[in-house]
Amino acid sequence: MGVVTPPTDRTPKQDRSRATRRRLLEAAVACLAEHGWAGSTVSVVAERAGVSRGAAQHHFPTREDLFTAAVEYVAEERSAALRALPVQGRTDVVAALVDLYTGPLFRAALQLWVAASNEAQLRPRVTELEARVGRETHRIAVELLGADETRPGVRETVQGLLDMARGLGLANVLTDDTARRQRVVAQWALLLDDVLD
Amino acid sequence: MGVVTPPTDRTPKQDRSRATRRRLLEAAVACLAEHGWAGSTVSVVAERAGVSRGAAQHHFPTREDLFTAAVEYVAEERSAALRALPVQGRTDVVAALVDLYTGPLFRAALQLWVAASNEAQLRPRVTELEARVGRETHRIAVELLGADETRPGVRETVQGLLDMARGLGLANVLTDDTARRQRVVAQWALLLDDVLD
Repeated sequence: MGVVTPPTDRTPKQDRSRATRRRLLEAAVACLAEHGWAGSTVSVVAERAGVSRGAAQHHFPTREDLFTAAVEYVAEERSAALRALPVQGRTDVVAALVDLYTGPLFRAALQLWVAASNEAQLRPRVTELEARVGRETHRIAVELLGADETRPGVRETVQGLLDMARGLGLANVLTDDTARRQRVVAQWALLLDDVLD
Repeated sequence: MGVVTPPTDRTPKQDRSRATRRRLLEAAVACLAEHGWAGSTVSVVAERAGVSRGAAQHHFPTREDLFTAAVEYVAEERSAALRALPVQGRTDVVAALVDLYTGPLFRAALQLWVAASNEAQLRPRVTELEARVGRETHRIAVELLGADETRPGVRETVQGLLDMARGLGLANVLTDDTARRQRVVAQWALLLDDVLD
């Protein structure tokens, strides 16, 4: 900002670098979701992304750097998509919030959380990341639900809803739980209406 | 049943065998919760339980046998403890249900679920175990909450509560989430009261 740089030389290189970074992050999330932490190394991700190991390490010096950045990147993408949703009925909002916890991002984040619970090197970074993503998701949920948190119990109601969404995500890890989940979401959207209005 | 065996010789041996089995199961759960699936082998568990590797393999021929049996054993212990609770107010019942998901059993089960999502050998057994434990927990919850599932929405309300409990368990894996959890539990117990009465 404020400094004008000649775009001709640098922009394409920066674009390439940014594209490489994005490819690495997306490959890292897919790898974590499919193979877990134990099966996810920088080399495996670099190969999947079609990037040399050296280039991967230039972007992310350590394995921890790569995978926490990957989960954060996808969380931000998902937050942006959630924010861009048109304002809808509350059932749709609840369903969209719950959807955040059933895709590959949740699978990848889950692998990272569980690995962090056993790996001292990973733990502080993942704890910090989880807190940040959690706060952001809560903010978006409050906004989309039109919840007035100055009223008693509303904050805890929204928190419980997001905890429920996380639990529904976990129930979907081993089996396709879609049919049951839709019934639970429909019922709790009704209950929320009573509290939030 | 029906066959009378002389108890003098066999009973102490059976008792010893049962005690060994229990020590192995408890060691397996602790090991899984602390070190994850990758760090949990039959040898590590046998050593922790003070049992020879051969004796451990006599009881549990494979690693999958040992760890699924371990999670099932502790789940049954917890169900029995939950059933034995004196009938209480609904907030206490909700808190007791949520407690099922915050201790070492949940940590161990979580490690097993996540490992099963990446390991084909483990997956069918853990899926079956999870379904069985889930049905049993639901049954106990309905009973303790005095919920009438013939009324529309009640079944899904109880399911959502248990999903929330699972999500609260996950939120407690990396950090001590007790204070927030207690506020969420108090609020959701109020919401349940409105629906279930």
